Amino acid sequence: MTAHRVLNGSDEVIEFGELVARDCPAPAPRWNGFPRYNFIGGHNDPAAVPVEALAEAAARVIRAEGAALATYNAGAGPLGNLRLRRAVALKLARQRGIEGTADDVLITSGSLQGLDLVNAMLLEPGDTVLMEQLTYSGAIDRVRARGVRVEGVPVDEDGLSVADLEARLERMAGSGVRPKYIYTIPTIQNPTGTVMSVARRRALLAASERFGVPIFEDECYADLLWEGEWPAALRGMPGGAQVVHIGSFSKSVAPALRLGYVSAEPAVLGRLVALKSDGGTAALEQMILADFLGSRFDAHVAELKERLRHKLGGLVEALDESFGTAARLWVPKGGIFLWLTLPEEVDTAALATAAAAEGIAFNVGSAWATDETVARHSLRLCFALPPAADLREGVRRLAAVCQRETGIPRTSGNERFDGDARR
Amino acid sequence: MTAHRVLNGSDEVIEFGELVARDCPAPAPRWNGFPRYNFIGGHNDPAAVPVEALAEAAARVIRAEGAALATYNAGAGPLGNLRLRRAVALKLARQRGIEGTADDVLITSGSLQGLDLVNAMLLEPGDTVLMEQLTYSGAIDRVRARGVRVEGVPVDEDGLSVADLEARLERMAGSGVRPKYIYTIPTIQNPTGTVMSVARRRALLAASERFGVPIFEDECYADLLWEGEWPAALRGMPGGAQVVHIGSFSKSVAPALRLGYVSAEPAVLGRLVALKSDGGTAALEQMILADFLGSRFDAHVAELKERLRHKLGGLVEALDESFGTAARLWVPKGGIFLWLTLPEEVDTAALATAAAAEGIAFNVGSAWATDETVARHSLRLCFALPPAADLREGVRRLAAVCQRETGIPRTSGNERFDGDARR
Repeated sequence: MTAHRVLNGSDEVIEFGELVARDCPAPAPRWNGFPRYNFIGGHNDPAAVPVEALAEAAARVIRAEGAALATYNAGAGPLGNLRLRRAVALKLARQRGIEGTADDVLITSGSLQGLDLVNAMLLEPGDTVLMEQLTYSGAIDRVRARGVRVEGVPVDEDGLSVADLEARLERMAGSGVRPKYIYTIPTIQNPTGTVMSVARRRALLAASERFGVPIFEDECYADLLWEGEWPAALRGMPGGAQVVHIGSFSKSVAPALRLGYVSAEPAVLGRLVALKSDGGTAALEQMILADFLGSRFDAHVAELKERLRHKLGGLVEALDESFGTAARLWVPKGGIFLWLTLPEEVDTAALATAAAAEGIAFNVGSAWATDETVARHSLRLCFALPPAADLREGVRRLAAVCQRETGIPRTSGNERFDGDARR
Repeated sequence: MTAHRVLNGSDEVIEFGELVARDCPAPAPRWNGFPRYNFIGGHNDPAAVPVEALAEAAARVIRAEGAALATYNAGAGPLGNLRLRRAVALKLARQRGIEGTADDVLITSGSLQGLDLVNAMLLEPGDTVLMEQLTYSGAIDRVRARGVRVEGVPVDEDGLSVADLEARLERMAGSGVRPKYIYTIPTIQNPTGTVMSVARRRALLAASERFGVPIFEDECYADLLWEGEWPAALRGMPGGAQVVHIGSFSKSVAPALRLGYVSAEPAVLGRLVALKSDGGTAALEQMILADFLGSRFDAHVAELKERLRHKLGGLVEALDESFGTAARLWVPKGGIFLWLTLPEEVDTAALATAAAAEGIAFNVGSAWATDETVARHSLRLCFALPPAADLREGVRRLAAVCQRETGIPRTSGNERFDGDARR
């Protein structure tokens, strides 16, 4: 019998801390709202939420189909709402080259659940996965939490460097290592905003087949591409059967609606369904989105892209004004974030602490990298949420903090940006 | 380099099966809709879904708060929608004796996520937990999937037998085993429908404190109690700080709305928030429920209970007519299911197979037991979903299958039930 402890002054209670599993993370700090100048998180523009269309869709679908909410999955089975799956299958076929029916789509609670399910299906402690060297921190963290090794492959303006990937796979095969998957964000890469070229996509699929390593394709930003061609998804190209593809409506509609999807071979979907023990994804949100997809979605995304492109323009202008040539910008081809690299004197982790004290938050580069040394001087700025005036003012204040802490930028506000120096 | 395989005839693809983690469950079979006579699943009565009220609430809250959907958690932070948390805190204080504010409540994606989070916080392979010997299959399965041992404690008409629990804890302490928690469903126990007496509740809290083993209280059916007193929740009694309490709106509103909650000490909630890496629970469903809770909820639950009580009456009548004294019924004090035990000749697992062939589905007793031998002759019938006519006809057909397969009931349709045998 273990002694109990006194907590909370008055009540004698068990000390839960003694009982907590060894790998349980530390308690989350109390949430205190968003920072004043908030450049973090995959938030969207509040003014762009299609409020009236969603309100009408909600009232309509609840009156028409609300009785079905009495059953788990609203009677649609574990893949999710049938009308929504049909709409996603149609969208994937028309826009991403992925042929398939509603039965080839699994609706998930955001693409984060897609990440969790695919990881649960494939990963065991001691495994290895490959990722772009700069990539989504949530994907890195989730894999590492499973005791799995992450190896990073360089990424450039054409996306993942497949030549580097092949050399890595060759070496690994030589030492008997078969990675469980190659995780890639080919279309509006996070954080670089690049789009993988078609030639690279073909080469990646060939490498995947040659080495017997599946591709895990994350397209959660693809809807927001506004510059250049819209290449087919990897899963939509020859060899696509070896690709597990996930997507999301967080960026194209709203992140608080927790709706994403997986497109994969039937044998893979069957495994993911067996692992999806959540009692179903929010059925009311699925009903509403299905209605919205069939009506206002395309027009909404077109408007949203215009709005985001305009905000990005303001952000780039503010960065040019405040940081001048000190900042190398990866101006994205779409999406909601911009990656930038400062001179070597600037450790962005230290800068983040100083900036936080002044109400400015940004993503520290090292968190967005498989090897933190490659991104020590980089940072990610999300630009969808703040109003245009806050983007400008936030950048101005960030430059002032940076100047004070590091001497960078050496001059500010009077040096124009040289376009050629951007990348 | 591992050889790839040919799948799907045309496409050469990787054989995912080779890469699947060892503990990954088998692929789920294709979903083929509900059986004709569906006595399984925690579904509700479709006719009882408050469709008009939800439609109005949805349109109202989206117009008022829809812009907030642009941010993760709709700007409310990881505990969930503030208005909903306030409403839950108020409900817990008024109805369940649990004092606390919105900051003491974590909104979860159904109470299933509450189960998962608490398990992730506390459990490691090799651990032990205690549960009622007859209990929710999902709770048993989730614990076992983590490599944790489940020990069952007998349950009778007053709920968990605390005398048996104490003896078990004493023995375990003697061999140096400290279970991670005592999981209990005290109010409308699943599957027996019993309500733990107040004396037992006090004794359980004392045992929890004495042995330093927290209580994990699952109250997902408590709103549907219609018979007898409504005892305070364990967490609402002295010593409640050692209780982690979960609840749900699946049974009181609709299961396809994925909304539940956790009430626990701040240190515990902080751990659960750190583990809740899902990008937030569906915010639109939270907004709608918060509005509904403030308006129609209480009246709705009162109507729903009347409806369910009436359905239960029809089910009991049908069982009396078809099974006579062969079936011992645990007539529940509320909720959506009834537990019954047949004579020893009837193995309900075999009966389920024969019944499925005739479109009848029920829960096999052994799945609802920590030790399957205690429930081999029992089964669980959920009665909220089927229309009253289907309840009658389903029971009639089930009795016919049972009679054909096992000779039980020996006579049918002409023997009245003896109330004293019910329990």
